[in-house]
Amino acid sequence: MNDLRKDPITGRWVIIATDRLLRPHDFQKTKIIEETSPDRCPLCPGHEAMTPPEIWRWENPDHSWSVRVIPNKFPVLRIEGDLLRRGEGMFDHISGIGAHELIVDSPVHSLTLEDYDAEQIFRILSAYKIRLDDLKKDARLRYGLVFKNFGMEAGASLRHPHSQLIALPIIPKNVKEELSSCRDYYELKERCLFCDIISDEMEHNKRIILESERHIALAPYASRFPFEICILPKKHEACFTRIGEKELKDLASLMDNILEALDRSLSSPPFNYMLHSRPFRVSERHPETTLDLDYHWHIEIIPRLTKIAGFEWGTGFYINPTPPEEAAKALREAID
Amino acid sequence: MNDLRKDPITGRWVIIATDRLLRPHDFQKTKIIEETSPDRCPLCPGHEAMTPPEIWRWENPDHSWSVRVIPNKFPVLRIEGDLLRRGEGMFDHISGIGAHELIVDSPVHSLTLEDYDAEQIFRILSAYKIRLDDLKKDARLRYGLVFKNFGMEAGASLRHPHSQLIALPIIPKNVKEELSSCRDYYELKERCLFCDIISDEMEHNKRIILESERHIALAPYASRFPFEICILPKKHEACFTRIGEKELKDLASLMDNILEALDRSLSSPPFNYMLHSRPFRVSERHPETTLDLDYHWHIEIIPRLTKIAGFEWGTGFYINPTPPEEAAKALREAID
Repeated sequence: MNDLRKDPITGRWVIIATDRLLRPHDFQKTKIIEETSPDRCPLCPGHEAMTPPEIWRWENPDHSWSVRVIPNKFPVLRIEGDLLRRGEGMFDHISGIGAHELIVDSPVHSLTLEDYDAEQIFRILSAYKIRLDDLKKDARLRYGLVFKNFGMEAGASLRHPHSQLIALPIIPKNVKEELSSCRDYYELKERCLFCDIISDEMEHNKRIILESERHIALAPYASRFPFEICILPKKHEACFTRIGEKELKDLASLMDNILEALDRSLSSPPFNYMLHSRPFRVSERHPETTLDLDYHWHIEIIPRLTKIAGFEWGTGFYINPTPPEEAAKALREAID
Repeated sequence: MNDLRKDPITGRWVIIATDRLLRPHDFQKTKIIEETSPDRCPLCPGHEAMTPPEIWRWENPDHSWSVRVIPNKFPVLRIEGDLLRRGEGMFDHISGIGAHELIVDSPVHSLTLEDYDAEQIFRILSAYKIRLDDLKKDARLRYGLVFKNFGMEAGASLRHPHSQLIALPIIPKNVKEELSSCRDYYELKERCLFCDIISDEMEHNKRIILESERHIALAPYASRFPFEICILPKKHEACFTRIGEKELKDLASLMDNILEALDRSLSSPPFNYMLHSRPFRVSERHPETTLDLDYHWHIEIIPRLTKIAGFEWGTGFYINPTPPEEAAKALREAID
């Protein structure tokens, strides 16, 4: 089983994936990128037997599927086993319990960014919601992250378009930091930090990319990357899984426009997106009354156009050569 | 002037580099990697006039140089101007004051990893020490990071081997986190956290790569990356710039062995290294007596063999397919 280890100096957790152990010579081999053709692709229709048993599907009236959820064949965390927490001298580790699922975005192997449409995005988002809601029931799990790696440069290892869901036995560092800022802000102002940012952005209108009835897409004030985008519900909501059908349709249509704008302005760039929602179970230290205002779900989209180098690794600082005001302008123009 | 912006949600700082503004079409161009030949390389001997005025050099008896320090021609932060801190609605920013220097590692344009030797590394490390000591005198600067990007995959944009130094008007997030852990640990145990890790590692000897008289190279317990390496002084020392000539020679010889081991086992991999030392000025909140035990300088080396994708960006977690025990073993074998 993989091992979850905590760095005593930074508090950062690492999954030591002995299941997929790589030795020096493996890295020399992996420099060659493998292209799977549709007739050998495990995610293409007709090859369902090549994957582990299906967890969920969006079934069409003719019994074909539009979206399919399956366990990852090479999971970084496994659902089977006990959650053991152990110390080892100076160090802490936890057994690699969790879930690692794959959401097949579409039956079409060579779906391009342009091909994504609002209806299909609605089905994909529905899969996210249903799977997060289900995994939440497992008392061992504290957090579920849905993410997408689009393009080899963004870390995708399969060409067939897909998203992933990894559920973790601990709340990850990045989410903890966001939660802690939101709680500090709530203590100070009795308001949600994200809500205040949204209203500030709407008032000044310098970094808004697109607004729909219920959602807003922004270029964040301190964007780490060129053309970084944040999508949020305009009305306060901490939990993504509480989203209703109407809101989900509204979100799907906004995301469709945003992905198209990225495609047009940057010619189908490699990108990652991550869905941040409130942890499954919230610590007892924070009384129920404040809970709803201590987070605000959002989707972060980061095109992978610049390289992360020694300065970023050494400081946690980022250098962004495209001011978010310029990025928002270029993306707005691509939508019009 | 570039703008330093703080993200209100994560506390992360970003340099918005309007000086090198990139628009959508620029990213399509930058996909082509430019190779500079020695006769057009600004870092090669004979081309000294192509760079801004020299700051420091290691001069040889024949008046040629072995190492040269120059201001970066396209600095992300500039030394000229006033340090202005301003609020802007919800947001905070600081003017882009700082220093950005380039340390030319060698006169040889096509120096390979194998070509680095202990004597030359000693000269490079001396340049780091001298420049950090000098920048420390500027009251506006709080931290200086020395780092190296080796290879295009690690973010190097010039082929000629070089290191960089960026001095910042604030203590960066990553260093703040390390300081805060060290201070918490000191409060609890009245000992240095790093010293305790070193003695734990020496007792169990599972992740030690190499020891010299005064330094130790480890594969960290919770390594984020395959073949990640941490080099530390065995005797407690918070500040790199207090290093003496003898220790510096010892460190240079250990680094020479480590770089050779990386070269042999992973065939000259792209990598970054970062030197972490205590901030220039430490906050008044922490009384002088504890100061010396609240940090321990170290060099982090990270080979760039795996891709960072949505999971890492969304959580701050890392997935490492090579356990540090295996990495240490492979590197030890490459040294023998």
